Amino acid sequence: MTPSVSMGNNLLKGKRGIIFGALNDASIAWKVAETCVAEGAQIVLTNAPVAARVGQTEALSKQLNAPLIYADVTKMEDLDALVQGSMDQLGGKLDFVLHSVGMGMNVRKKIPYTELNYDYLHQTLDISSMSFHRLMQILWKKDAMVEWGSIVALTYIAAQRVFPDYSEMAEAKALLESVARSFGYHFGKKNHVRVNTISQSPTYTTAGSGVAGFDAFYNYANQMSPLGNASAQSCAEYCAVIFSDYSRMVTMQNLFHDGGFSNTGISPELMENMSNQELRKS
Amino acid sequence: MTPSVSMGNNLLKGKRGIIFGALNDASIAWKVAETCVAEGAQIVLTNAPVAARVGQTEALSKQLNAPLIYADVTKMEDLDALVQGSMDQLGGKLDFVLHSVGMGMNVRKKIPYTELNYDYLHQTLDISSMSFHRLMQILWKKDAMVEWGSIVALTYIAAQRVFPDYSEMAEAKALLESVARSFGYHFGKKNHVRVNTISQSPTYTTAGSGVAGFDAFYNYANQMSPLGNASAQSCAEYCAVIFSDYSRMVTMQNLFHDGGFSNTGISPELMENMSNQELRKS
Amino acid sequence: MTPSVSMGNNLLKGKRGIIFGALNDASIAWKVAETCVAEGAQIVLTNAPVAARVGQTEALSKQLNAPLIYADVTKMEDLDALVQGSMDQLGGKLDFVLHSVGMGMNVRKKIPYTELNYDYLHQTLDISSMSFHRLMQILWKKDAMVEWGSIVALTYIAAQRVFPDYSEMAEAKALLESVARSFGYHFGKKNHVRVNTISQSPTYTTAGSGVAGFDAFYNYANQMSPLGNASAQSCAEYCAVIFSDYSRMVTMQNLFHDGGFSNTGISPELMENMSNQELRKS
Amino acid sequence: MTPSVSMGNNLLKGKRGIIFGALNDASIAWKVAETCVAEGAQIVLTNAPVAARVGQTEALSKQLNAPLIYADVTKMEDLDALVQGSMDQLGGKLDFVLHSVGMGMNVRKKIPYTELNYDYLHQTLDISSMSFHRLMQILWKKDAMVEWGSIVALTYIAAQRVFPDYSEMAEAKALLESVARSFGYHFGKKNHVRVNTISQSPTYTTAGSGVAGFDAFYNYANQMSPLGNASAQSCAEYCAVIFSDYSRMVTMQNLFHDGGFSNTGISPELMENMSNQELRKS
Repeated sequence: MTPSVSMGNNLLKGKRGIIFGALNDASIAWKVAETCVAEGAQIVLTNAPVAARVGQTEALSKQLNAPLIYADVTKMEDLDALVQGSMDQLGGKLDFVLHSVGMGMNVRKKIPYTELNYDYLHQTLDISSMSFHRLMQILWKKDAMVEWGSIVALTYIAAQRVFPDYSEMAEAKALLESVARSFGYHFGKKNHVRVNTISQSPTYTTAGSGVAGFDAFYNYANQMSPLGNASAQSCAEYCAVIFSDYSRMVTMQNLFHDGGFSNTGISPELMENMSNQELRKS
Repeated sequence: MTPSVSMGNNLLKGKRGIIFGALNDASIAWKVAETCVAEGAQIVLTNAPVAARVGQTEALSKQLNAPLIYADVTKMEDLDALVQGSMDQLGGKLDFVLHSVGMGMNVRKKIPYTELNYDYLHQTLDISSMSFHRLMQILWKKDAMVEWGSIVALTYIAAQRVFPDYSEMAEAKALLESVARSFGYHFGKKNHVRVNTISQSPTYTTAGSGVAGFDAFYNYANQMSPLGNASAQSCAEYCAVIFSDYSRMVTMQNLFHDGGFSNTGISPELMENMSNQELRKS
Repeated sequence: MTPSVSMGNNLLKGKRGIIFGALNDASIAWKVAETCVAEGAQIVLTNAPVAARVGQTEALSKQLNAPLIYADVTKMEDLDALVQGSMDQLGGKLDFVLHSVGMGMNVRKKIPYTELNYDYLHQTLDISSMSFHRLMQILWKKDAMVEWGSIVALTYIAAQRVFPDYSEMAEAKALLESVARSFGYHFGKKNHVRVNTISQSPTYTTAGSGVAGFDAFYNYANQMSPLGNASAQSCAEYCAVIFSDYSRMVTMQNLFHDGGFSNTGISPELMENMSNQELRKS
Repeated sequence: MTPSVSMGNNLLKGKRGIIFGALNDASIAWKVAETCVAEGAQIVLTNAPVAARVGQTEALSKQLNAPLIYADVTKMEDLDALVQGSMDQLGGKLDFVLHSVGMGMNVRKKIPYTELNYDYLHQTLDISSMSFHRLMQILWKKDAMVEWGSIVALTYIAAQRVFPDYSEMAEAKALLESVARSFGYHFGKKNHVRVNTISQSPTYTTAGSGVAGFDAFYNYANQMSPLGNASAQSCAEYCAVIFSDYSRMVTMQNLFHDGGFSNTGISPELMENMSNQELRKS
């Protein structure tokens, strides 16, 4: 269990930001919201309109005294209203934005990877990846980001390696990371705004834990990571530093926040399991 | 100038394949088709219906005695007919397939990256990337690939690093490479079929050379690559070995065929240019 | 020019650390030392004995009220004395360590890469890379790192891509980064200590600017980086967050701190240079 | 079990090469030697003088009618004599060279990674990695490689990710791969000679299978690789195409020949193991 940071260092003092995707207190975005406020930021929360029914974002909004503006990430006008409303309510341009949005339509419909429905795949990419471009296009057009601002999207290592159950979401995350690099280039040249993705350990969120076999999957990653899996709270703390002025020259990167999983090839615990099995030679 | 391989080694003797995208003799796919036939393969050529007007695929079809079946890569029924027709005409299952398909709708419409139209982006991804999944879904369902078969798609290093003029095609190639990895996993488990992408140097094809500033771009890559840019013909020869039995355990890889560009940080020629410029310090 | 962080956030309040390599006020390590102290840490400075003659580390020692303990990084007994002395003077185990050490013997002797002298190469690796393992072996044996401590070494992208003038130092940095991963695995399992490398932009340090053609090189990187080259001060600020509790689940990573250089393939400024040159086709 | 290529395609007809490291018929290099000769090449075999006692290289020398020249890879004069002797006996410059050399002194002495002896580590690097530079320096000075020749060294994915039992050999392979990139740059500029590393699956060679827990390790990799582990013979076939004219624009690359291991994050077989274990949450 990762110990908690003692908050109140004012890492984000006077900064303004938007946090997408805080559905309930298991959400990474929920922890990011709490952490940013604890670090001195003022934030706006946003979520899909449907979340009004299924989530607790309104409770968080009250807890943090943070305005809540619903927005459908597939609609430019919603994102425009969100960004405009955020600047109006926060009283200025934005210093940071967290994109924590994803939806796998084929996964949800239990359609196997080799039989993907392409209308659903378009929806998956539209919601999970193109939404990030759409958001940045609005931020760009409205000149809504301060000089040296920071934009982060959450991603997963399936963009680099195959985790079969993750299915089409691997494609969505690969696309998301590419959007971060490409738009990061342009936003950097425009006014030094940074764009990065944070590639987080498997996490027991509502989205994550709904996946079939998530427990086994979580356990595997935990055994493979020298520090164990990173918690939602520790991810939030890392987001805070990537939003802060302490990481101003980091951009267009995919930052692994995973307890060392990405660079571990095997763990002795797994080796032990293997040695108890029948040997197969090629 | 890369010297040519002396053909006739029968690398692909008795093998059957489909080659997408041979528009004219500047196309990489054109060279792949010629090379595969020279190496003993029987092939079917395919292209978009519109290519019947603007391309010379029919001439190549005659030259190589290779059936030509038009197919729209956005339509499952076209791909099904293509795969079925190919097996019928070639007399058996397929050993290899080359996907060389791409179209940037926003690029074509001269829409800047920061202002992408999302309907166009959906089309770009549908044609350039999802087409690869669609193709493999058909090959899978029809059980059309032989054991240890090989599927290759052509890609570009913009999937890893930003080349601003390449615009949304960076996203298309990132998605394409992810599809290769994901489907490669499943096809490998199914019947040892390999799926890889080949990341080729900038090449003077009809598609490539139409891009604004392509000459400068080509020149830059040529100076940065210790071996110079790879030609379409040398790419075809590399495709032949990746189709052949000599690379049977290579799968889910992105293979750079670029004269060393990808791992070169700077070249003395570029350094010299820089040293003649005014020094800027941060 | 990157604006400075307003310090005093107590990111490292109550933490103890050792900083290697603060030779003079152009050194990255010099800025790291100042930043860590400003953030509330107590530190020990260390440098090679020869630095007593050529550097200003003693001045920094006075300025920061930080003990200075000379140590030859090629000698276990020196490193043992350094670590013991640091714990004694700081009053406890260590929270963080910065390794900023490098020396290219063949480079210094102006021996071309293709003619490397292997005795010199052994020295280069011994000083620049094996020193990092040696340091961690001492920290490990003496159980000198606190739970969740953080160890960082500075590196350069030549470990991934070829910059010909960087010569054998590319090998030294590749070895250094491998040591970080390997020892990071073990230290993570032992007591959650993190080990990372930070891959910094070219910087006008004494070591850097002595290299032939450094100006051209610096200028090239500056043009290729959307945010420009990262300064020594901004690197120090990034080190501070990687030392802090805010990045506790990040380990075994190579973190690019380079204004976006690593993921930029070409910049329009360079393209413009190219377009004024004669076109060469392969 | 990977099926064998039917040989006799004359991929290497008329080419001359040197093969290091064919100790016995389990060696990858042994298979490379057989394959190259079957493909029409003339070769010289080389091994460490000590191999005369412990290996069967002389038997292979007779079988293939290939001269055997012993050489200590840590001695420039031995490598000079080897290269000169090879050109003399083969009647011309060299088209290809395989470096398959490695020795972990600390591993052999059973010294744990966190307690490495640095004299041994220097020896490990000298034998396993610097030997590759030394070899290329001799080839360069004697102008012994033909235009578009090909040099390959065998490596392992421990250069990228941690496999704890592989210990210091991870560092040796990281250094080896860096040497390939750096010297590859220079050799490419000089006369288009390519330098690559091939990163092979765990293989039951004398060196490999002596490692503690190799069976478990092999089994793990086999389960994680969609195609299973690559055999020594299939590696030999891949070496043949990288030596051939069919891959002339591929240089400075690390080529994974591993059945898909490198890009697979988890396999269902492993997932199943995990699901039978107690769940641990961070």
